[in-house]
Amino acid sequence: MRAVVVEQPKTVAIKDVPKPEPGPGEVVVQVAACGICGTDKNIYAGTFLSHYPLIPGHEFSGVVAAVGQGVSGLREGDRVAVDPSLFCGECYYCRRLQGNHCERWGAIGDTTSGAFAEYVKVPARNCYVISERLSFAEGALIEPLACVVWGMKRLQAQPADSVLLLGAGPMSMLWLQVLRHGNASQIVVTDLYPSRLEAAREFGASDVVVADESQEERLREVSPRGFDIVIDVTGVPKVLEAGFKYVKPMGKLMAFGVCPMNSSISVNPFEIYNKDITILGSMAINYTFEQAVELAEAGVVDLRSLVSHTFPLEEFERALQTAGTQASMKVQVNP
Amino acid sequence: MRAVVVEQPKTVAIKDVPKPEPGPGEVVVQVAACGICGTDKNIYAGTFLSHYPLIPGHEFSGVVAAVGQGVSGLREGDRVAVDPSLFCGECYYCRRLQGNHCERWGAIGDTTSGAFAEYVKVPARNCYVISERLSFAEGALIEPLACVVWGMKRLQAQPADSVLLLGAGPMSMLWLQVLRHGNASQIVVTDLYPSRLEAAREFGASDVVVADESQEERLREVSPRGFDIVIDVTGVPKVLEAGFKYVKPMGKLMAFGVCPMNSSISVNPFEIYNKDITILGSMAINYTFEQAVELAEAGVVDLRSLVSHTFPLEEFERALQTAGTQASMKVQVNP
Amino acid sequence: MRAVVVEQPKTVAIKDVPKPEPGPGEVVVQVAACGICGTDKNIYAGTFLSHYPLIPGHEFSGVVAAVGQGVSGLREGDRVAVDPSLFCGECYYCRRLQGNHCERWGAIGDTTSGAFAEYVKVPARNCYVISERLSFAEGALIEPLACVVWGMKRLQAQPADSVLLLGAGPMSMLWLQVLRHGNASQIVVTDLYPSRLEAAREFGASDVVVADESQEERLREVSPRGFDIVIDVTGVPKVLEAGFKYVKPMGKLMAFGVCPMNSSISVNPFEIYNKDITILGSMAINYTFEQAVELAEAGVVDLRSLVSHTFPLEEFERALQTAGTQASMKVQVNP
Amino acid sequence: MRAVVVEQPKTVAIKDVPKPEPGPGEVVVQVAACGICGTDKNIYAGTFLSHYPLIPGHEFSGVVAAVGQGVSGLREGDRVAVDPSLFCGECYYCRRLQGNHCERWGAIGDTTSGAFAEYVKVPARNCYVISERLSFAEGALIEPLACVVWGMKRLQAQPADSVLLLGAGPMSMLWLQVLRHGNASQIVVTDLYPSRLEAAREFGASDVVVADESQEERLREVSPRGFDIVIDVTGVPKVLEAGFKYVKPMGKLMAFGVCPMNSSISVNPFEIYNKDITILGSMAINYTFEQAVELAEAGVVDLRSLVSHTFPLEEFERALQTAGTQASMKVQVNP
Ligand SMILES: NC(=O)c1ccc[n+]([C@@H]2O[C@H](COP(=O)([O-])OP(=O)(O)OC[C@H]3O[C@@H](n4cnc5c(N)ncnc54)[C@H](OP(=O)(O)O)[C@@H]3O)[C@@H](O)[C@H]2O)c1
Ligand SMILES: NC(=O)c1ccc[n+]([C@@H]2O[C@H](COP(=O)([O-])OP(=O)(O)OC[C@H]3O[C@@H](n4cnc5c(N)ncnc54)[C@H](OP(=O)(O)O)[C@@H]3O)[C@@H](O)[C@H]2O)c1
Ligand SMILES: NC(=O)c1ccc[n+]([C@@H]2O[C@H](COP(=O)([O-])OP(=O)(O)OC[C@H]3O[C@@H](n4cnc5c(N)ncnc54)[C@H](OP(=O)(O)O)[C@@H]3O)[C@@H](O)[C@H]2O)c1
Ligand SMILES: NC(=O)c1ccc[n+]([C@@H]2O[C@H](COP(=O)([O-])OP(=O)(O)OC[C@H]3O[C@@H](n4cnc5c(N)ncnc54)[C@H](OP(=O)(O)O)[C@@H]3O)[C@@H](O)[C@H]2O)c1
Ligand SMILES: [Zn+2]
Ligand SMILES: [Zn+2]
Ligand SMILES: [Zn+2]
Ligand SMILES: [Zn+2]
Repeated sequence: MRAVVVEQPKTVAIKDVPKPEPGPGEVVVQVAACGICGTDKNIYAGTFLSHYPLIPGHEFSGVVAAVGQGVSGLREGDRVAVDPSLFCGECYYCRRLQGNHCERWGAIGDTTSGAFAEYVKVPARNCYVISERLSFAEGALIEPLACVVWGMKRLQAQPADSVLLLGAGPMSMLWLQVLRHGNASQIVVTDLYPSRLEAAREFGASDVVVADESQEERLREVSPRGFDIVIDVTGVPKVLEAGFKYVKPMGKLMAFGVCPMNSSISVNPFEIYNKDITILGSMAINYTFEQAVELAEAGVVDLRSLVSHTFPLEEFERALQTAGTQASMKVQVNP
Repeated sequence: MRAVVVEQPKTVAIKDVPKPEPGPGEVVVQVAACGICGTDKNIYAGTFLSHYPLIPGHEFSGVVAAVGQGVSGLREGDRVAVDPSLFCGECYYCRRLQGNHCERWGAIGDTTSGAFAEYVKVPARNCYVISERLSFAEGALIEPLACVVWGMKRLQAQPADSVLLLGAGPMSMLWLQVLRHGNASQIVVTDLYPSRLEAAREFGASDVVVADESQEERLREVSPRGFDIVIDVTGVPKVLEAGFKYVKPMGKLMAFGVCPMNSSISVNPFEIYNKDITILGSMAINYTFEQAVELAEAGVVDLRSLVSHTFPLEEFERALQTAGTQASMKVQVNP
Repeated sequence: MRAVVVEQPKTVAIKDVPKPEPGPGEVVVQVAACGICGTDKNIYAGTFLSHYPLIPGHEFSGVVAAVGQGVSGLREGDRVAVDPSLFCGECYYCRRLQGNHCERWGAIGDTTSGAFAEYVKVPARNCYVISERLSFAEGALIEPLACVVWGMKRLQAQPADSVLLLGAGPMSMLWLQVLRHGNASQIVVTDLYPSRLEAAREFGASDVVVADESQEERLREVSPRGFDIVIDVTGVPKVLEAGFKYVKPMGKLMAFGVCPMNSSISVNPFEIYNKDITILGSMAINYTFEQAVELAEAGVVDLRSLVSHTFPLEEFERALQTAGTQASMKVQVNP
Repeated sequence: MRAVVVEQPKTVAIKDVPKPEPGPGEVVVQVAACGICGTDKNIYAGTFLSHYPLIPGHEFSGVVAAVGQGVSGLREGDRVAVDPSLFCGECYYCRRLQGNHCERWGAIGDTTSGAFAEYVKVPARNCYVISERLSFAEGALIEPLACVVWGMKRLQAQPADSVLLLGAGPMSMLWLQVLRHGNASQIVVTDLYPSRLEAAREFGASDVVVADESQEERLREVSPRGFDIVIDVTGVPKVLEAGFKYVKPMGKLMAFGVCPMNSSISVNPFEIYNKDITILGSMAINYTFEQAVELAEAGVVDLRSLVSHTFPLEEFERALQTAGTQASMKVQVNP
């Protein structure tokens, strides 16, 4: 079968590789759509924990093509979205339901062969059957949505909370919609690019603010007291650092964007104490795929409009370059 | 001024009474709109704790007409919605932030003169200024919305919860909208009347089910495993009792409807244990008016379409009879 | 090896049966101590979902005697306490972290061969290594403690909550200690028997009250406003039913005791609403074994004093009869 | 009457000033004991928001000496502990139950005349009657305990959490006890001084570690994976900053100590994200005095042993110098 192989950092080939066979408890999925995410860029750049060569791809949907021994509840032809999480289920963290911190943590497409390929082998238990209501493009967006659902569990937003989203990329557009349907009152979104802010308006932002030198003043205007919830969805340390000044007393600041591994920000500890601030990390998916499927199936979140570009497998590198640019929103590959 | 006076149970007069003067810390509000609620029916019927004669009316909005001594932050002409809660602030329960269980509990229109009158005197701190975006009809719906916000605090709904609302009166339509914007996945509504179920569809129900003998079968069809959240919004004991069978393991059943004081239901305690069920009461407003104002201002909830009938003060009794009938939704009086 | 076999309801034999061999991912544990619990009585009586013949026993500790293929992290000679829960990990409920409602729910000693035997075969992942600080008698009490920890997760007790424990059997003594160390202020315990109430005093009850006709008056004296938390630890429907009247506004009532399957209680729904009451079930263990081990290891709970009687395997039926009597507290069998 | 007057930063006089008279809703309390806290040191140093001259003192107990108009529920001779919080009850924050962020925030002894005086005038509603079981010295420790209770509400500690307390001053000793009775498993305490660590052992620490260059290694030994909860109780920015490295995945780091107003610490945002860390501020008292009274009355916390030194009013400055030294724990003044 054809697959994207990252031979080593910065070296990608589209190659013929053997089609996988399902072992016991596994199925092989014929990939229909697979999204590109920041982690793929890190795998390409060599700044992630992966071993090379690797077939990346962890945001995907497809059709069950072969079923291994002892698998019940799935059959050939089932349309599925796949939770890429590989938790051991036995270590200290897994027993505490903190699988995303598993001592043997792995993920399909990050530590094992992923879905930028015609076929991918996955544990049957990672598959969630999706209905005809959802396209494969939507199915491939359930994985990032499940990250946001974990973020929501961490946040515990309350009715009428006001929200500031820093950044207006695809992850922010998911946050925007989930919070829109999460009883937030005001939701303000910032970004460097007006084009992305237009998208934010369409997805339901109350206000949008360009991230230039006038940003602070504009944010004071739209919400003089600050926000109950501020979420960094850029992964830029300085943006998160500046986020502190927009948090209300008793408010929450979430580090959702993935900052560089050895970056640092400067924080005023008196302010944390004095304003009763809560700062929260949110790491990937932690048993939240099921809820993401339900939100997608119920049509609570509009996933379809999030996909701006679709490329064939052969154009993986172009897809990689397109993702994260201002002209794009979510970029997917259809193998 | 003209006012509705319940002289004694079942005896109402529209009378001239002295216009109130604001004391220190108080304002007088010229009432623009005041909704009718189940409690008004109980006051009329004599089945509430009120003393007679009483001017009822606790769901209201209007304009500040006079300002008492020592009031800052409010001035004549301000458009306001009013939290009717009168908590003493000093008793055991108030100190625990359980003001809705205050030892000296009172409420404007329940224990003191209310808003089915041209003017009503209220503590300044109970007034919330509302913007021009909100009509007075909408302003008068913030009070019931604040009850639902308290219910939401009690519920702690989680992303993707499925919901069953029993009853499709105005309170249920508020619940429906708040949960729709509260990340519920599926929301199913039941009622005796198809006309009210149509309203439920328009407010965003996923499914509606007529409360006849086929109800149980239909509910099993739309949600074979039951629901994460079941809320009784009828106040009918048998309806709440039947609600148990629709609750999923780890699900929640809320008694929001107000059942008769000495009613009883039969509950299987093994089931509560075995299914890890949570049953929750939710009593009126408990410091949740602010959030309701914010939800209304943000336009998260469509309050305008909830008002089906408006009557002048003189037709109070007709208004009372219209409220709660299948042809009506929220009924308001414009004094 | 020797084992207790319930051939069919009410028929028990102590028999020679084949010693189990560990399959892949499994270990065989040489049982050191196994407690008797209400479920064992139900298995004996034929009122539990078990299939017969069955070797019961699910509250146990022992020493790893044989290790199956692919097991890492455990070796012969390890002292272990064992979580009896058998969750499939793949069904709708397991994916939602509600394993105690697993569609294929099972438990060692309830649905598969248990620990009233010299040896028992268990999945390696169910074993928790315990230190020399804990005796085997204590190790065998971690299972019931893990039930209480799940109850604590459900309860979310807050600092200074006052508590009423109905019943003073071994489960109540665990609750008492955990709540004593859970920032409860006042903890009152009731029971039919003065001897058990003496134990309650020793385990740290603030007050004890005999469950006779003077009970209600006495409870009003010790806590005129009622309690923030009331827990039924008797399993007697009438006791749970009466529990309502001792719950404070905003208080919680927990159904922890296991009432008969088809029992019913009468509940006033107006009171639930009007007092903002929360009623909670709590079903067995739900990923809470780890925390129970840590509480035991830290010495937060005194498990040792809970064991009142110890019998050899041969006297299983005497052990069964002794458990639950007023003269006893926890009864264990040492195979 | 005699009173401590801070005339201006660093200038204190013991003077005769007029004895206060209670206004409506107020009482005058004859002060029995008043503790010294970090804020008093800041008021003395001029680094707090107070206006001068000021009588400081906010941790106190005493006897009601005079009762103002309209006060019910209190009478001369009542022994009381006093919540110093002065929240307006009407501003944006008060309406959201965030009184500790009140727009008109004040506190007895911080912004109005306090309790380092023979008599102090306070709103009746701030008084909590205490029983004979509690000495006045204990009564004066309820205020700091109420700060810890607010911290507990922010923390939401779970059964079996492991805890690291940085610093072993009086506030840490309160935390230690509350967490000891809050189902923590392991509680480790650090301090510069062995003498304070001895106190920590006596109050129930599982382990104590001297804060020298071997600290990190020692902490890794006692808890290789880190801690579920790390609380800075020193107020030293570098200590809080170093706290990050001891937090487990999904763990919580609390900034309880009050760092200098314009200090800063360096934080790795990748780590917050990657470890799902929660960082929490906790600011003073927020409607938590009642619970602190109940914990004190129930004897859950040993307050008596916390008082190391007692001075007469005349020796206020010596008291101030003694507080915070290694030889002392809580220092009180008995006017
Ligand atoms: N926590 C999790 O579980 C999780 C899961 C998935 C993704 N993530 C992270 O979430 C972040 C967002 O992902 P994404 O796919 O939406 O990425 P993205 O497309 O790169 O979006 C980030 C957006 O932030 C904008 N931005 C940059 N600097 C800004 C500033 N100063 N102010 C305002 N906006 C600014 C970017 O504009 P430019 O394009 O011009 O820079 C871009 O539009 C990434 O860090 C990703 O790694 C986290
Ligand atoms: N907890 C609180 O804080 C709070 C606050 C406000 C109101 N409430 C209570 O909430 C409840 C609803 O208020 P509302 O103003 O919406 O009242 P409503 O207009 O009377 O609505 C109740 C609805 O339930 C329907 N119903 C009756 N029996 C039913 C059944 N067997 N199955 C399904 N539906 C059935 C009613 O139909 P019919 O008209 O034909 O009976 C009606 O449409 C009342 O009990 C009210 O007192 C509670
Ligand atoms: N939820 C869970 O996960 C879970 C886990 C384990 C056990 N349980 C259940 O918890 C309950 C307690 O277990 P246990 O082992 O402690 O049982 P137990 O030894 O039978 O204790 C129950 C105690 O309640 C007393 N009692 C009976 N009627 C009473 C009354 N009217 N007022 C006050 N006390 C009364 C009993 O006295 P007599 O002996 O005279 O009747 C007995 O001392 C059982 O129902 C058990 O099935 C639940
Ligand atoms: N959040 C709130 O609501 C609240 C309420 C009350 C108090 N506080 C704050 O809580 C903190 C503690 O109060 P306290 O009265 O207990 O003060 P304290 O007596 O000064 O105690 C602080 C302790 O930390 C020790 N320490 C200093 N550097 C250390 C290090 N590197 N490692 C370990 N320990 C170190 C100190 O030793 P040395 O004495 O040698 O420096 C001292 O024993 C203060 O910052 C206070 O302002 C906060
Ligand atoms: Zn693991
Ligand atoms: Zn009150
Ligand atoms: Zn399962
Ligand atoms: Zn205020």
